[in-house]
Amino acid sequence: MSKVITFYFDFMSPYAYLASVEVERMAARLKCAVTWRPMLLSVSVVKVMGLKGVAETPLKREYVAHDVARFARYLDIPFNRATTRPMMPLPAARAFVWLEQIDRAMARDFAQHVFHAQWADAQDMSTPAALAGLAQSLGIEPDALLAGIADDDVKQQLKRRVDESIAAGVFGAPTFVIDDQMFWGVDRLPMVERWLQTGGW
Amino acid sequence: MSKVITFYFDFMSPYAYLASVEVERMAARLKCAVTWRPMLLSVSVVKVMGLKGVAETPLKREYVAHDVARFARYLDIPFNRATTRPMMPLPAARAFVWLEQIDRAMARDFAQHVFHAQWADAQDMSTPAALAGLAQSLGIEPDALLAGIADDDVKQQLKRRVDESIAAGVFGAPTFVIDDQMFWGVDRLPMVERWLQTGGW
Repeated sequence: MSKVITFYFDFMSPYAYLASVEVERMAARLKCAVTWRPMLLSVSVVKVMGLKGVAETPLKREYVAHDVARFARYLDIPFNRATTRPMMPLPAARAFVWLEQIDRAMARDFAQHVFHAQWADAQDMSTPAALAGLAQSLGIEPDALLAGIADDDVKQQLKRRVDESIAAGVFGAPTFVIDDQMFWGVDRLPMVERWLQTGGW
Repeated sequence: MSKVITFYFDFMSPYAYLASVEVERMAARLKCAVTWRPMLLSVSVVKVMGLKGVAETPLKREYVAHDVARFARYLDIPFNRATTRPMMPLPAARAFVWLEQIDRAMARDFAQHVFHAQWADAQDMSTPAALAGLAQSLGIEPDALLAGIADDDVKQQLKRRVDESIAAGVFGAPTFVIDDQMFWGVDRLPMVERWLQTGGW
């Protein structure tokens, strides 16, 4: 099987974190490739759809707080949520697109560590300083990463990626695309797996 | 196994239709009981959460139109969407609570037929007249059903049910509750099944 799964993520989404682990497990089983693509819920949900974020939404906010931890246990993925403010994903998303231009595998590795630090180690990865510290531990030059985050071309490149995600119809994170089929939500991975195995229905 | 699954539904949701079929299949496998409970997305989503309905939401609207049909094929459930206006669920929800006071099994049977007529036979079940016609085919006196839909006590009983659903934290349809655990979405039924089989995690 030589299919490619395009995986749209936002670092601020704990469901995207769970998906980031689970989609790579699935891809390894099926010998598929995963293309990681940043999107921003602040653009799709708030600007394009005209909705509120989960943290501002009664009932859903309480459900999600309980559900994410339960889902992590279901998938056997470590999960510890920071009790501080919501994660601000923009610096990490910019760091990702900067790294991607240098080395895609390194960008993915970095993204996996950002997700893990934020959602399994309960660190706040909102700031360039926190990301630079993480980069250093991965052998990435922290000053180069800080310059990348601040670079205008990198900002434009992220904006292009986000515009592309909206043009593709992506509104939530995680979203998975195979050929012309889009699936929203980590709970859809079993369906994605069946699609990959059977060629669709 | 003697567990009870509380199944919250809104007739206007095609996902609730899929769930209405699938939850009974699952309950039969596991020898569980299903308690059907009406809720109204117009109350939870619009009034309480302050969001818009799917039909008013860019990106999600287009996704759902494609996804529901794909999901129906995945579950092997007949699906034909009426191309007319959105379903208005209030008369059918009132008919359900009226019937429930007489005979719970009959109310469930009626609800299943309403769902099927709306979402598999592409009929518009928004009106008392359409519901009365369906009732007659099931051996329910149509004039009694019409009187039930218009009855003030029935309207108050539905209002109580909807208030109870909000108090329970239910915001979406379908929602499943087992003991103190709430699961939102037809895509969560495999997780609900594992919870029932294992006693939770």
